Amino acid sequence: MMRLGVDFYQRKVQQVQAQLEARALDGLLTLNYANVFYLVGFFHYPTERPIGVFIPQRGEPTLFVPRLEVDYVKEGGWTPNVEWYFEYPGVVNPIDWMCERLAARGLASARLGWEESVSVSTWERLRRALPHADWVRAGDILGTMRLVKDAQEIALMTKAGEYADWMVGEGVRMARSGRPSETEIEQAIVGGVIRKMQAELEPIVAVPGLAGSLIISGPRSAFPHGLNTTRRIAPGENLVVRCACFVGGYFAESERTFILGDPTPEQRQRYEVDRLAQEVGTQALVVGARCGDVNKQCLDVIRDAGMGDFLRHRQGHGIGVQNHEPPWIEDGDNTILQPGMAVSCEPGIYVPGQGGYSISDSVIVTANGPQRITHYPRDLESAVIAI
Amino acid sequence: MMRLGVDFYQRKVQQVQAQLEARALDGLLTLNYANVFYLVGFFHYPTERPIGVFIPQRGEPTLFVPRLEVDYVKEGGWTPNVEWYFEYPGVVNPIDWMCERLAARGLASARLGWEESVSVSTWERLRRALPHADWVRAGDILGTMRLVKDAQEIALMTKAGEYADWMVGEGVRMARSGRPSETEIEQAIVGGVIRKMQAELEPIVAVPGLAGSLIISGPRSAFPHGLNTTRRIAPGENLVVRCACFVGGYFAESERTFILGDPTPEQRQRYEVDRLAQEVGTQALVVGARCGDVNKQCLDVIRDAGMGDFLRHRQGHGIGVQNHEPPWIEDGDNTILQPGMAVSCEPGIYVPGQGGYSISDSVIVTANGPQRITHYPRDLESAVIAI
Repeated sequence: MMRLGVDFYQRKVQQVQAQLEARALDGLLTLNYANVFYLVGFFHYPTERPIGVFIPQRGEPTLFVPRLEVDYVKEGGWTPNVEWYFEYPGVVNPIDWMCERLAARGLASARLGWEESVSVSTWERLRRALPHADWVRAGDILGTMRLVKDAQEIALMTKAGEYADWMVGEGVRMARSGRPSETEIEQAIVGGVIRKMQAELEPIVAVPGLAGSLIISGPRSAFPHGLNTTRRIAPGENLVVRCACFVGGYFAESERTFILGDPTPEQRQRYEVDRLAQEVGTQALVVGARCGDVNKQCLDVIRDAGMGDFLRHRQGHGIGVQNHEPPWIEDGDNTILQPGMAVSCEPGIYVPGQGGYSISDSVIVTANGPQRITHYPRDLESAVIAI
Repeated sequence: MMRLGVDFYQRKVQQVQAQLEARALDGLLTLNYANVFYLVGFFHYPTERPIGVFIPQRGEPTLFVPRLEVDYVKEGGWTPNVEWYFEYPGVVNPIDWMCERLAARGLASARLGWEESVSVSTWERLRRALPHADWVRAGDILGTMRLVKDAQEIALMTKAGEYADWMVGEGVRMARSGRPSETEIEQAIVGGVIRKMQAELEPIVAVPGLAGSLIISGPRSAFPHGLNTTRRIAPGENLVVRCACFVGGYFAESERTFILGDPTPEQRQRYEVDRLAQEVGTQALVVGARCGDVNKQCLDVIRDAGMGDFLRHRQGHGIGVQNHEPPWIEDGDNTILQPGMAVSCEPGIYVPGQGGYSISDSVIVTANGPQRITHYPRDLESAVIAI
């Protein structure tokens, strides 16, 4: 079993509480599902039913859930105080009910942190329900904490990276097994890794979308976010194999592009340019670098090769309890890289009507330089599959 | 191929425009992914990258997308005007860029509708980027339209209901085939239906989570939102088979509870109470009824049988381009049922440590009474599987 222990969650709560004290806040209410995952390890399927965690400046946090999660929450890693409402929307709206629960703690006129990721409707409801509270924006507390992963989190992501690499290998095995369709490859990969994770990690931390794969071939591989179809792979084409999974609620991705049969000079050139950009982009992920600058260094390799028109997206994005989270390895993100940040490095070249080239690793920024946690070979020879 | 045609989307845009005219609004900007699905049929994988549709009071709408969707959007059913930004967050934030695009249309001081489902951060950005616009809240325009489905939408949901029923049947076939695990059943069902849909409907409208199934057995069946595990089914236990899919981007679900082997008197009684509640709840879904009252009638069957302590959730929820959307068949929802509303009817009885009982159909409210679009048998005899 791989999951974080009570000590992790208690430490995170203490870190929040130190911030609350520094800001003279009596508590923080988060309604963000990813922050709930992160703070109390309650990995659940988010719906319209609000789920919240309240962290007082001192003492234990409380998890607010709908009735249908009350038994399930006990299966999780850490069960703090749990209070429940029946359903959404209910006669008393769940947000109003959470505010009543805060008022019952004597916090009706307290100084309370809230997060700007809530909807305008929810924010208006919070203010109406506790009109005498001093609501203070505090989305940066968890936003900043989540940017840097500790050793326990990195251990989970590293394991997720191993499974993601295994998935890519399974995709190659399938590609060699005749002329499977994109969907057949995807189902073999995802089914296989879930069975493997269940056998090796049981009980696993179940999250929605535990493992996923996008398999796109031929001209469709030029769609960065294309979904699988019944299209069968064919010689001469590109096959993009994107694989990702969560271990203990933490994410990693491994993505590779394969050439089915002998590459043409054009395929060879585009592949090598993308591989070089991915290498340059990875090596630029060093402590002290600015995300926007790293992105520019990485994508400039593609622009300098005269392929700038084939760019469709940034170098990468942060990973953690979400598959996409800050920092963004993109122009305009001024985050300075610190040890413990975890990101994807996935520059791509997408030639409409012909095909795409994309290589993605999950990378940890460390004091000793960038450390990839996905290792499937990237050299052109390994990317050629005779079919 | 089953998908809505250009005529559908044009009609919906005209309906929005009639509302804009009535409210003297120059246009509406929606940033809600489900509203984007609904208005322009661009079924995509939502990420942090904002995607928006702007509908002017007169003329064609515009779809705002990140660069990586530009080629993919052409695969969709209807391609209105498309404008793109490169990436998120970018040097110019995409929300600011959309506002620039509106200003370029001469709308910098216009009266513009916005939706309260946006985050507080996004709302603040809209106001800062177009400070002279008269921003008017208008989330109810699409909220109200989406409540009632037309014949074309219902045809897609009816087809989705057929597939969902097929999935339940596949689960039964698997349960009879030895002692499969929850995951093995789930993978057979989901893999099977996707292959079937691809063979019969290709090209299908791909949405994230095209088909899904939750298979939970034994004591875990008492978790309404439990996720699949390697647990193998065993005689004497309950097996809850929850199946759902999208056709043409529209959702339906079919869920049944099975008793593995001869039911005990207690299993029999609880099953029959749930079945009766589901029948009463379905028949109460008539034009003119208030959602909260329907829910009460339905759940009272369970309370009157002395099983109120085993309730964990409401009767049901609306379905459409989302798997959960208004109206909510729950106390506190005062929506009056109208012809064309589509909802799940899924009361459940959950006995901690023992097992759950849940039967869900997808139901259309019509002038001739409630019409189920899922039909897998509900009688106890059909729910008993000898293993």
